[in-house]
Amino acid sequence: MDKSTLMLRLAAAGAALFLFGCASPPARTMDGPLVIAKQGSFFVGGRDVHSDTLSMLPAFASTGTITLDQMYVHYQVPLDAKRASITLIHGCCLTGKTWETTPDGRMGWDEYFVRKGYATYIVDQSWRGRSATDISAINEVKSGKAPAEKLPVVFAAAHEGAWAIFRFGAAYPEVFPGMKFPLEAQGEFWKQMVPDWSNAVPTPNPTVPALSMLARQLGGTVLMSHSQSGIYPFQTAVLDTKGIAAIVSIEPAACPDPASDMAPYTKMPILVLFGDYVDLSPRWSPRLKRCRAFVAAANKAGGRTELVLLPDVGMHGNSHMLMQDTNSHQVADWLLAWIDKNVAN
Amino acid sequence: MDKSTLMLRLAAAGAALFLFGCASPPARTMDGPLVIAKQGSFFVGGRDVHSDTLSMLPAFASTGTITLDQMYVHYQVPLDAKRASITLIHGCCLTGKTWETTPDGRMGWDEYFVRKGYATYIVDQSWRGRSATDISAINEVKSGKAPAEKLPVVFAAAHEGAWAIFRFGAAYPEVFPGMKFPLEAQGEFWKQMVPDWSNAVPTPNPTVPALSMLARQLGGTVLMSHSQSGIYPFQTAVLDTKGIAAIVSIEPAACPDPASDMAPYTKMPILVLFGDYVDLSPRWSPRLKRCRAFVAAANKAGGRTELVLLPDVGMHGNSHMLMQDTNSHQVADWLLAWIDKNVAN
Repeated sequence: MDKSTLMLRLAAAGAALFLFGCASPPARTMDGPLVIAKQGSFFVGGRDVHSDTLSMLPAFASTGTITLDQMYVHYQVPLDAKRASITLIHGCCLTGKTWETTPDGRMGWDEYFVRKGYATYIVDQSWRGRSATDISAINEVKSGKAPAEKLPVVFAAAHEGAWAIFRFGAAYPEVFPGMKFPLEAQGEFWKQMVPDWSNAVPTPNPTVPALSMLARQLGGTVLMSHSQSGIYPFQTAVLDTKGIAAIVSIEPAACPDPASDMAPYTKMPILVLFGDYVDLSPRWSPRLKRCRAFVAAANKAGGRTELVLLPDVGMHGNSHMLMQDTNSHQVADWLLAWIDKNVAN
Repeated sequence: MDKSTLMLRLAAAGAALFLFGCASPPARTMDGPLVIAKQGSFFVGGRDVHSDTLSMLPAFASTGTITLDQMYVHYQVPLDAKRASITLIHGCCLTGKTWETTPDGRMGWDEYFVRKGYATYIVDQSWRGRSATDISAINEVKSGKAPAEKLPVVFAAAHEGAWAIFRFGAAYPEVFPGMKFPLEAQGEFWKQMVPDWSNAVPTPNPTVPALSMLARQLGGTVLMSHSQSGIYPFQTAVLDTKGIAAIVSIEPAACPDPASDMAPYTKMPILVLFGDYVDLSPRWSPRLKRCRAFVAAANKAGGRTELVLLPDVGMHGNSHMLMQDTNSHQVADWLLAWIDKNVAN
């Protein structure tokens, strides 16, 4: 082997080692192949429950033990991940799919954050998606053992009603001028919707203690919630602030009561983020107002809490589903800059 | 820059290009970082349905359109993927989680197959997991608009009853000698279970036409099903054989009727695979017998169909959940060898 050939072989081996074995930071690219240090899925939480109405079919026993309240978690860790991870918590009538490939086929925040160096954990709330619901009461009523009123409170959001809630426009099928949700792909978006059982579960939602267990297990994660789950990271902080590196509450359905104890919310940086057209929405403008009151109260108590409307930082046209809007990567960049600035990495 | 330095830089650039940009086969390693060419998720199928009983809550309209029957698909494509992909279809009371990280924390077949060079597609059956169910009838009965008998047929499998179905032992909590399911992690497995709505949907299950759409879209995929879904690839082939590179039916709850038209099953290689202890199970031994009759009929009609029991190829102790058993990677290697031999790659 001549010297040049040896050099080449050594260099190639070195490059392979760099990419596949060593601790030095790899190049972070936003397209091209994605290098994952580790990925997988697991459950957090859950409890065993006895039921006598699990089945009315001869092939499956009516009586026995099932496990409920667990929360499904799927994760990807990039090479040389930053110290804090990001945990993504979807909203009403949706699942962890919220954060994956957008309806119009662009990269979701799940992969975008990984490519930017963050280990990313995506949950299906308890009683949603891959996290079990309890159908016992349905069989109890169907078999005549309980009255109809004992059926669980469940609902599905219709396209027409969801339209205004997601702020695509003031009312179905109107569209706010310049609105950035990819409506040409709305068919794919409606397929993401699933029934909501959150009114059939205890308060706080079992997702909250599960998030607390996850945060403590991860030892430092940004709890990034959306809409219905907006309040969950705050409720998690009330249980235990351990492991919560920051809270990013995107378009929360509710913020904490400003008259409540603010102490848990002074332990980590907090961002409450809204998109555009909020003042045009009778559903969202009062919520924004209440979140402003919370932010003022938390800061008065010594917190580091911010409320940002995307138009105020130069981004216009964002719907409630801003992680899927056509400028979703721009919004992600802004969010990651906020995290980089506020969370020790 | 001297010649050596230039050489080193060129070599490093070449190695990077090799790993991140070119078409040559990368090293396939079963541990260390994982290189993904593309990943994401989408839905297949689905239809819009009108309902007047979507909600009994004031915040959500009772009337409107929802989308049902769609099938959630998550995929990963390795660099230089083989020509045929693998589509993994879970069984009763489970979701796509079946194929991910095992209950005892080992790599699932999802990632194992990708590392072996196969683009891998994982579905949640229609009406399961991230694929929506229809709760309209629950609200119809709860609001007094329909009698209790109109409630959907839904069931959940209890740990105790599932024990024998999954062939952990003859009856709960007995264990077959040498049985390889990681029972020390059974708590994590029970959390994977979700209610089953498959009796509330049309026949064939909407998953079947969705699988057909997916197979045609992928232009050549191995439909690998399990248990309840064991029959789906066969039903898919009856709809249209296009795009089905092979069928691997793992421990099917049913095989096609040997007296039915065998023509669709002669168009692709077919493997029916069972684990251990089948003859000890009153639930599974008759199913095995019927599958043998199907295999004989399909081969008589000119098919290339095999039925294999793992003990006959040297693997012992496998439960019904063989993709999670402690020798799951050994089973995967055997399966991939079968695919490599029978499917043009």
